[in-house]
Amino acid sequence: MMQQAAIGLGVHIRLLAEAPDVSAAQVIPDHIVGDYTDLDTLRAVAADAPVVTFDHEHVPPEHLRALRAEGHACRPGPEALLFAQDKAEMRARLFEMGIPCPRFLLVASQGELESFGYPAVVKTTRGGYDGKGVWIVRSAADADEAFASGRALLAEELVDFRRELSALVARSPSGETSSYPIVESRQVDGVCSEVIAPAADLDPALEAEARAIASRIATELDVTGILAVELFETTDGRLLVNELAMRPHNTGHWSIDGAHTSQFENHIRAVLDLPLGSAEARVPWSVMVNILGGAVDDLEAQRSVVLAAEPEVKIHLYGKAVKAGRKVGHVTAYGSDLDDVLARARHAAALFTDGVTS
Amino acid sequence: MMQQAAIGLGVHIRLLAEAPDVSAAQVIPDHIVGDYTDLDTLRAVAADAPVVTFDHEHVPPEHLRALRAEGHACRPGPEALLFAQDKAEMRARLFEMGIPCPRFLLVASQGELESFGYPAVVKTTRGGYDGKGVWIVRSAADADEAFASGRALLAEELVDFRRELSALVARSPSGETSSYPIVESRQVDGVCSEVIAPAADLDPALEAEARAIASRIATELDVTGILAVELFETTDGRLLVNELAMRPHNTGHWSIDGAHTSQFENHIRAVLDLPLGSAEARVPWSVMVNILGGAVDDLEAQRSVVLAAEPEVKIHLYGKAVKAGRKVGHVTAYGSDLDDVLARARHAAALFTDGVTS
Repeated sequence: MMQQAAIGLGVHIRLLAEAPDVSAAQVIPDHIVGDYTDLDTLRAVAADAPVVTFDHEHVPPEHLRALRAEGHACRPGPEALLFAQDKAEMRARLFEMGIPCPRFLLVASQGELESFGYPAVVKTTRGGYDGKGVWIVRSAADADEAFASGRALLAEELVDFRRELSALVARSPSGETSSYPIVESRQVDGVCSEVIAPAADLDPALEAEARAIASRIATELDVTGILAVELFETTDGRLLVNELAMRPHNTGHWSIDGAHTSQFENHIRAVLDLPLGSAEARVPWSVMVNILGGAVDDLEAQRSVVLAAEPEVKIHLYGKAVKAGRKVGHVTAYGSDLDDVLARARHAAALFTDGVTS
Repeated sequence: MMQQAAIGLGVHIRLLAEAPDVSAAQVIPDHIVGDYTDLDTLRAVAADAPVVTFDHEHVPPEHLRALRAEGHACRPGPEALLFAQDKAEMRARLFEMGIPCPRFLLVASQGELESFGYPAVVKTTRGGYDGKGVWIVRSAADADEAFASGRALLAEELVDFRRELSALVARSPSGETSSYPIVESRQVDGVCSEVIAPAADLDPALEAEARAIASRIATELDVTGILAVELFETTDGRLLVNELAMRPHNTGHWSIDGAHTSQFENHIRAVLDLPLGSAEARVPWSVMVNILGGAVDDLEAQRSVVLAAEPEVKIHLYGKAVKAGRKVGHVTAYGSDLDDVLARARHAAALFTDGVTS
């Protein structure tokens, strides 16, 4: 998806691919297959590139500091990325900034967790995603696996929330920001299932607060590129920050078809310090539904079925082998009637996942 | 631009590139560099591909027939392409169909041209484009160069026209068509300079007639993929067909940003016989202005100037070396006020071409 935006802007991407057949390597001619934890590999990719950026947050910060010392701009930089890599660092920093967060405590033992209190959400401070490395703990026994992992753990208040929201903002090194409408993100088993843009019936004060939180975090943490701030809207009408991501994010995929400037275009513009484009919606409603691997093995063959049923839905297939539950693509529908848009997007995604309407 | 659409649909393109550094080869990993007039090269590219399609009309028809005999679907096929390759064949066929065309005659000598009458437009029947191979003839002397070329020549009535229009339609092998709004195409020295979508103040009856002409030509000539029909709107309010192209066309580039389904996506959907998407505009006005090579050598460096001046204009750079007058990219602006949209698109293109506002 980054390459689609890069083609338009005439930006040349050199890719470090983890394997020869990953999605991005299928569409970016200039790619090197290698290990992003190996500094010499990173050096070979960076070579004459003016800017290094990422589609995940796992490149070791010491390598980014080395690249920077050798003259490469890394955007976002290692100091910012730390807060997307380590949840304990993120919580401490946001707390310091006065950003509303769930109550939290680093817990090294069952005793410390007990003193924090149940119920709690226990998370590994590093490496978790899509519900992995997260435990809902209502008694000590529920945390046994977490402590057995031997990893640093963070306990957080189990938030009583109405829904999950996401605030995306693009920020350039010169400090310009462009913030996307606040969207609702619906999760199934900890995995993003669908995104509604904008979040329906969101109190304008909360919308403004969510945008302000994202812009403030981007600015104070010196994030460059896209920052995604995942938020809880609590049942009593407050916002609490859940997670940060510093890259184009699943909750922003709707913007490819539904916003004036996609998150991928704005990410590229931001990291190259080009003026940013409008992040506002160009349609009243967009709904993105992820295509999860299911009963349909041959997504390409299924395309004709989906397009016959929903010719106006926008298809995005990632060229990945289908495995149960794996995100292998997404669809976006847009229009002026939310119920209709939601139904069309779900219908198309269900046809890709199950071959039938869910 | 085709690759941007292919990425979304998850369609794999194998490209035959004329040279290693052409635009498409920069963004399509799976490419072979070779000569499209060489059958063995075409065979190597076609290999296991279910469908062969084109971004120009110059592949020899006998090679396409050979590929087809070997089991490859060629879309459009050689019988349809003939009418985009040979203007005499096109004129004869459209005349037979009763499609309104300028008066025409194949002329083998100055005597025949004199009997056709002056003024006339004299064209080589094959190989002309962007004003090349076209002479405006007001007396015998004006046609000397044309006859000296030794090529087959067609004389056409010099049409007194108000403006040039373009009618694009996508058609799939199963016969489905999806037609784009009729646009105005403005030419400078025979080269498309800007496109206004839709054509302003177009009589609804002419709009409907133009769409019907394009759909009828696509159907009766069995065109698959995008067909572009360039039309004259005469000063007395009639439509006459000027040229045909059977591929995504410069007059349809606005659709990437301004239509629900771009001409590139619909071309791919059509040649793969997938259901087509809506070709209607998603905004009141779109204006595309070509970026012609001019005083600015480094288009990438100029990007920041253009985006600072016009952050909402959509940039499309082709990765081509700048040469005077060469199409090296285009910009599209869209919105609800035509004067504003036109001004923004022209401003951005002028900044890319001349480095200053025209």
